[in-house]
Amino acid sequence: MRTTTYPTVNEANQAVIDKISSSTPFLVDVAPAHHVMEALGERELLHAGPPIAYSEMTGPMQGSCIGALLFEGWASTAEEAERMLKAGDIRFKPCHSVDAVGPMGGITSMNMPVLVVKNKAENNTAYCILNEGIGKVLRFGAYSEEVVERLVWMQTILGPTLSKALGQLPEGLNLNVLVARAITMGDEFHQRNIAASALFLKELSPYIVGLDIPAEQKQEVIQFLADTDQFFLNIAMAMAKAVMDGARTIESGTVITAMSRNGRDFGIKMSGTGDEWFTAPVNTPEGLFFSGYSQEEANPDIGDSAITETFGVGGMVIVAAPGVTRFLGAGGFEDALAISNEMTEISIAHNANFSIPTWDFKGACLGIDARKVVETGIAPIINTGIAHKNAGVGQIGAGTVRAPLACFEKALEAYAKKLNLID
Amino acid sequence: MRTTTYPTVNEANQAVIDKISSSTPFLVDVAPAHHVMEALGERELLHAGPPIAYSEMTGPMQGSCIGALLFEGWASTAEEAERMLKAGDIRFKPCHSVDAVGPMGGITSMNMPVLVVKNKAENNTAYCILNEGIGKVLRFGAYSEEVVERLVWMQTILGPTLSKALGQLPEGLNLNVLVARAITMGDEFHQRNIAASALFLKELSPYIVGLDIPAEQKQEVIQFLADTDQFFLNIAMAMAKAVMDGARTIESGTVITAMSRNGRDFGIKMSGTGDEWFTAPVNTPEGLFFSGYSQEEANPDIGDSAITETFGVGGMVIVAAPGVTRFLGAGGFEDALAISNEMTEISIAHNANFSIPTWDFKGACLGIDARKVVETGIAPIINTGIAHKNAGVGQIGAGTVRAPLACFEKALEAYAKKLNLID
Repeated sequence: MRTTTYPTVNEANQAVIDKISSSTPFLVDVAPAHHVMEALGERELLHAGPPIAYSEMTGPMQGSCIGALLFEGWASTAEEAERMLKAGDIRFKPCHSVDAVGPMGGITSMNMPVLVVKNKAENNTAYCILNEGIGKVLRFGAYSEEVVERLVWMQTILGPTLSKALGQLPEGLNLNVLVARAITMGDEFHQRNIAASALFLKELSPYIVGLDIPAEQKQEVIQFLADTDQFFLNIAMAMAKAVMDGARTIESGTVITAMSRNGRDFGIKMSGTGDEWFTAPVNTPEGLFFSGYSQEEANPDIGDSAITETFGVGGMVIVAAPGVTRFLGAGGFEDALAISNEMTEISIAHNANFSIPTWDFKGACLGIDARKVVETGIAPIINTGIAHKNAGVGQIGAGTVRAPLACFEKALEAYAKKLNLID
Repeated sequence: MRTTTYPTVNEANQAVIDKISSSTPFLVDVAPAHHVMEALGERELLHAGPPIAYSEMTGPMQGSCIGALLFEGWASTAEEAERMLKAGDIRFKPCHSVDAVGPMGGITSMNMPVLVVKNKAENNTAYCILNEGIGKVLRFGAYSEEVVERLVWMQTILGPTLSKALGQLPEGLNLNVLVARAITMGDEFHQRNIAASALFLKELSPYIVGLDIPAEQKQEVIQFLADTDQFFLNIAMAMAKAVMDGARTIESGTVITAMSRNGRDFGIKMSGTGDEWFTAPVNTPEGLFFSGYSQEEANPDIGDSAITETFGVGGMVIVAAPGVTRFLGAGGFEDALAISNEMTEISIAHNANFSIPTWDFKGACLGIDARKVVETGIAPIINTGIAHKNAGVGQIGAGTVRAPLACFEKALEAYAKKLNLID
C-alpha cells in the first residue's frame, strides 16, 4: 500500500492519468499460462468479470468451461466435463485477480498460450489468451471438436512460433507505437482491429519467416494471422490491463481502473478503492445480428474486453472507427462523433499518445471519472460482440451496451466511507 | 474507333463513368517490362507526363535517366550516361503511350520489373514499376550505387518472388476489394498507402512463405514489403491506369481520363478527344519539407501518379485520409472535408465501390468533368511528393498542387471543334 496522499481528488486523479499516459506497454512473449501465472494450476479456470460460480454463469461461459476441460484433457466428453463442473471439481478465479483479462467468457486454463505484455514504466505485466479467429470459438461458448483442435494447434504451433519471433525483438514490440499508428487507420481496438492486426503481421512476419522451424508451420502461422482481423484485440486487452494495473499503484482518486462483465454482473474497480469490485446487473447489448439470429437470443453483456474502454479506446473513441459504426448499428459518422464527444464529458483528459485524425487530432479518452459518470448520468459505452445465450452456439452479432450507473454510485459511496466523509 | 454516339455530352459522360465503376482490375503478375511491353526495347526509356525531350527535363527526371542507364548497363559511369543522353543516343516515350504509368520521373527501362494489372471488364492491361521505398530512390532522381543496387535486387529477387506468389492466386489479386477495405483505413492511395500496403502483405505473405525459393529471399522480400509503406502506391497507379484506359474505350464526352506531369507541363487527356494531350505549364507543389529543405528547392510538379486523382482518389478524397493532411500541410479534419466537398463540384458522381466512412459513407469521386472544372474555376487538387529540383538529391517533402485550368479549357475547345460546334 502506497502512503502517498493527495490534497484533492482532482490531484489524485491527475496522478492516475499521468501513470496511464506515461505507461510503456511492450508485447514481450507468448507463453503457456501456467508458466507465467503461478496462481493458475490443475483443475482451475479463470473467467471474465467479477467473481461468479459455475451454476450462476450464463450459457456461453459454461460452454467455454466445457471446452477448456476437453482441451486440458481433464474430461474426455462434454457430458463428463459438465458433470465435473456441476460437482464443483473445478476451482474458479476472475482473470483480473491474476493480472489477466479474457475476451467474452474469458475462460483460461493452464496450458493455453497467453500474450505477455510488460508495462516497462511500472514493471508490471498483464496476460491474455490468443484470439482464435471467428466462427465457432471457445470464447463465445463453442466447444466442438473443431474448437478444441484449434486450441491444440494454438498451444503447439501458434504460441511457440510467436514466442520465438518475439524473442528476436530485443525490447519486445512497442505497443504504444503500433496503437498510435492503427488509431489513424480506423481501429478503435474493440470491435475493429484490422489495421493493428495487419501492422502486427507486418512487424512479426519478417521474424517468423526467418525462424528455424518447418516451412509449413511458418505458413500456417502467417496464414492464421493474415486471416484473423481481430487478432490484435487480445493484445489490446493485455496492453490496456498492463496500463491500468500500472495506474492502480496510485490508490487514490475516482478514476475507473477496470470494467468487466461476467454475463450476470457488470463490475468496476476504481483507483481509490483498490481491488474491490462494485457490481450491478449487466445490460444486454443491442446491435446487428448475423442472419438467422435476433435480439431475443442475445446473451447479456460478457467479457473482460471492456478494459479497452477503461483504457480510453473502444466505444469511447468510436469516432476513430467510423467504418465500424454501421456494423454495430450505431449510425453514420456524425453519430460516431456525437458518441465520442459525449464520452469526453465523463473523461478527465485526452491521451496525447493516440491522436485521432477524424477527431481533429484530439487524443483518445483518458481516465473515466466515476464522479463525472454519476453527476452527468452518462454511462460509458462499450462496443462488444454478442454471444448466443445458449452454450455451444457462439457469436451471433455485435453492438453496443452501456455500463450500469449503479456500479459507479456504489464505488463513490465506498470511497467516501474510506475517506470518512460518510458513515 | 467506336462508332457509338451519344445524344448528349451528359449521356456520353455517364457511359464513361459506368465503365469506371464497373471496372474489375486485378493484379495478375510482376514481369520484366520488355516481356509485357513490346514497344519498350534497347536504348529506350519511358518517362512521366506528356512528351518531353531530355534537354527539357528537370533535374530529377534527368537524374532518373542516368540511373536507368547505369542499371541497364548501357553506361558504366554517370558521366558516360549523361553524355549518351545529351547526344540523343536514348529514345524517349511517355509511359502513358505504352499502357504504363510511372511515379515522379517515371523513368522505366526494359529490364525493370513492372506490376501487371488487368482490367477484366474491358480486357485491357496497365503497367507500373515497383515502389523502391523511401530515401535515395530513382524516381526522385537519385542514381547512386545504392540506388542501382536496389534496382538490381528488385529485378532479380523482388520481382520474380512477387510473380511466383501472384501465380498462386488463380484469379490474381482483386484490387477493388483491397482498395475498398483500405479506404476505410485512412488511405487515399497517393500520399498514404500504409493500410493498403499492409493488406497487400497480408494477402501475399502466406503465398510467399509457401514458395520453393531460398528462405533468405522470402525474408528479404517480406522485410521489404513490411518496411515500404508506399508500396501500394504503384499498384494503385497501375490499377487507376487500367480502369481509366478501360473507360477511354468510350470516345465521347468530357470526362478526364488522364492527368500527368513531366516537370515542365501538366497534361490531361479527355474521353471525347482520345489520345491527345492538352498541356499547360505545371505548378510547383506547396507543402511541408524535410528538415534542411525549403520551398525554393522544390521541383515543379512531376509524375504520372495524378492518375490516382483522375480515378477519383488521392487528393480528391483527402477526407478519407485525415491522418495525412498534416503531413501535406493541408490542415485538420474540417479542412480535409472541405477539400473533398469542393472536389465533388467538379466530379460527376460518387464511386459506390469505395465507400468512405469519414465522408458519411459517400463513395470516392467518380469522373472529373472538364466542363465543371472550367465553369467553376475549381482545378483538381493533387497530393504529391516533392522532389529536389537538382538531379541526384531525391525527395525533400510532400504537399498539394492544383492542375492548371488552361489544360481543361484547351481540351473543351478541341472537343468543340471535333463536334463542329466551333471552327
